Amino acid sequence: MVRPLSALDLARRIEGGEITPADVVARCAEAIAAGDATIGAFAALDLAGAEARAKADGAALAKTPLRGLPVGVKDIFETADLPTGYGSPIYAGYRPATDAALVCMIRRAGGLLLGKTVTTQFAFMDAGATRNPHDPAHTPGGSSSGSAAAVAAGMVAVAVGTQTGGSMVRPGAFCGVAAYKPSYRLLPMVGCKTFSWSLDTAGLFAAGIADVAYAAAALTGRDLRVDRAAPAAPRIGLARPHIWPQASPAMRAAVERAARLAEAAGASVREVALPPVFEDAFRAHGVVQDYEAYRALAHEYDTHRDRLGPRLREHLGAAASITPEAYDDARRIAKRARHALADLMGEVDVLLTPSAPGAAPRGLESTGQSTFNRLWTLMGTPCINVPGLIDDSGLPLGVQIVGRFGRDRAALEAALFVERTIASSPGA
Amino acid sequence: MVRPLSALDLARRIEGGEITPADVVARCAEAIAAGDATIGAFAALDLAGAEARAKADGAALAKTPLRGLPVGVKDIFETADLPTGYGSPIYAGYRPATDAALVCMIRRAGGLLLGKTVTTQFAFMDAGATRNPHDPAHTPGGSSSGSAAAVAAGMVAVAVGTQTGGSMVRPGAFCGVAAYKPSYRLLPMVGCKTFSWSLDTAGLFAAGIADVAYAAAALTGRDLRVDRAAPAAPRIGLARPHIWPQASPAMRAAVERAARLAEAAGASVREVALPPVFEDAFRAHGVVQDYEAYRALAHEYDTHRDRLGPRLREHLGAAASITPEAYDDARRIAKRARHALADLMGEVDVLLTPSAPGAAPRGLESTGQSTFNRLWTLMGTPCINVPGLIDDSGLPLGVQIVGRFGRDRAALEAALFVERTIASSPGA
Repeated sequence: MVRPLSALDLARRIEGGEITPADVVARCAEAIAAGDATIGAFAALDLAGAEARAKADGAALAKTPLRGLPVGVKDIFETADLPTGYGSPIYAGYRPATDAALVCMIRRAGGLLLGKTVTTQFAFMDAGATRNPHDPAHTPGGSSSGSAAAVAAGMVAVAVGTQTGGSMVRPGAFCGVAAYKPSYRLLPMVGCKTFSWSLDTAGLFAAGIADVAYAAAALTGRDLRVDRAAPAAPRIGLARPHIWPQASPAMRAAVERAARLAEAAGASVREVALPPVFEDAFRAHGVVQDYEAYRALAHEYDTHRDRLGPRLREHLGAAASITPEAYDDARRIAKRARHALADLMGEVDVLLTPSAPGAAPRGLESTGQSTFNRLWTLMGTPCINVPGLIDDSGLPLGVQIVGRFGRDRAALEAALFVERTIASSPGA
Repeated sequence: MVRPLSALDLARRIEGGEITPADVVARCAEAIAAGDATIGAFAALDLAGAEARAKADGAALAKTPLRGLPVGVKDIFETADLPTGYGSPIYAGYRPATDAALVCMIRRAGGLLLGKTVTTQFAFMDAGATRNPHDPAHTPGGSSSGSAAAVAAGMVAVAVGTQTGGSMVRPGAFCGVAAYKPSYRLLPMVGCKTFSWSLDTAGLFAAGIADVAYAAAALTGRDLRVDRAAPAAPRIGLARPHIWPQASPAMRAAVERAARLAEAAGASVREVALPPVFEDAFRAHGVVQDYEAYRALAHEYDTHRDRLGPRLREHLGAAASITPEAYDDARRIAKRARHALADLMGEVDVLLTPSAPGAAPRGLESTGQSTFNRLWTLMGTPCINVPGLIDDSGLPLGVQIVGRFGRDRAALEAALFVERTIASSPGA
């Protein structure tokens, strides 16, 4: 089931006239026909529309930044032409009047919207039906479950997800693909269902780091591509946060192996001590998230409570009692931690840390834990899952590169450096 | 046409059992029947629903924080029970599936949604049909035109608006009511049509400062009321930005008069010099706003361009060429200016500056200029229009109090101090 498509490679071949956007759509359609009954990555599909568009406008699309590549979008982004369900029975079949800003940007850049990908309910923890392409008995992670799985299974070249806790980096790690959560608000959130307005961040999945950087550059017009020259050797800080013992032995070994490989390839690697405010910030994440979610999902909680997933319902009920003072405190802690992180990163380009506690857990009830992601989401910094390592059972183990706020290109370049050292190591 | 209702006074009388929520709804219904054919404050009304609710639940509502007071909401906030048109023919009669977070918060606090108030198209500069209650030949200001006019005309006790440039403080000044734009994101924007995600800020209109503070406290559960003790004498910085010459002689005199009155009443008043970065920040506002608007309104621009107002269409067309680099530069300037403002305000509690270039201009084609508001919106600080002064023709002249970020209560208290000194001065 696992055969991700390199967006960059496809784009180059389309640019060179070797293949057409219609060929790529056909290939994705085949992968969907072969696998999606098992994987369940899509909540809604528009294969016919994408095929028609690729055939009619193929030559024009081939000249656009995204070159007519097929894109999947997490089903918490509103689309006027496809239903938008937010993963919830409350909105089954709902048709908003408007496309989300990011959906319009995909179109402006020449991408083809192939479908909406499965999300957990309102991007929280009540799982959808998606399975992990590496082993359908395992979760693909969440909340951007369908986007990560669709890319891993070669059903789309690029997919959009969001992260509020760990909803990009974790499913990217579990599905063995590159996940890029940019600096806060680099990609617009207009028309995306809000869970926490201070934290929700749109991001991209693609096969590898160069692919996800290519897609980000094409969508935004920013200088984010990293495929045009060999990446410079980065200064890496190996970060073992206070929750390090919660990582599995395999994950701890994976991070340490990635560090050794990078060092052997010329990167400077040093252990960095995270200051104590980060432990407070780790807790502050939940306060900020939940205070905002109780307001952002007020309509659903107040008028459709019995149709919410049990985890979300219980969580919002508890969130009702968070005071404005506790929320303001949490935001102040976050601000202090951001300053501390900026200081810490004066001496390194990026941090290297686990993407998740381990490989994808067995079972579909839980999408796994965002333990190793929440703090960085609160910091608003770019976070990237670097794929390439596996555990003893053959499941992917992702390591995470955390960059400096606004220095997304440097983070992508460092992630590419690590990805390449892993790929060229014996037994990768 | 001008007889604003004091929300605080009504709330006290409801609490004391003198009047009921139904009495207040009836009074608002009378004002609407008498005046709205001329004023045109409402885009949609639910008087029958509010009356029924006030009659059925009056006793319970009287115990809520907002005590069943009638509220008007700018028609860029989504409502499931009332049409949401965003001031645009594209969305005439549109019914979203969801209530905006702030609409739910009004309901949670015990407010009654009386109707949706007229906004300019997508809260930009293409005017709606609302007239100024002080003189229907004059604009009420915009973009929160209907909300300011409805409060001034006693059609609601409280109204919600938003500000991206000067869309709260200016119509508050033109209509002679209190307008409170809180610190950025104190009130949630979820379910509000986005123009610029970095700038759009929800706020409240009410008759006077104590009323708007009462409503803000009731809605948020924050300690924002200022009516329980006499306000302390503030340290005021009289701010004449580089655009000061663009203020009318009457406006310049009004600000200077407010400063003298406050000083005579015990406030410390000093001239403050705004650092040069503020001139850059003034220009940066437009870059940030327009770059984001071209993305936030992508669906409307890309698929309904010919149905956009001419000003917005032209503006978005020009915005298309703003580069990510120019946007990032503008955001860096804004950040520097915020630091400079925090330094400046180490020595004063608030700034005193014009709310608008002058009184409401004659005519309905233009809603006036946001010249004296944009900079402060970019700073994210609380901004309050203090009503009470008039020009020679009897039209209101508003002066503006700008507070420190997150110190909303202090800003409201200072605004109340200034309002009281104006009200108790000879010839006010």
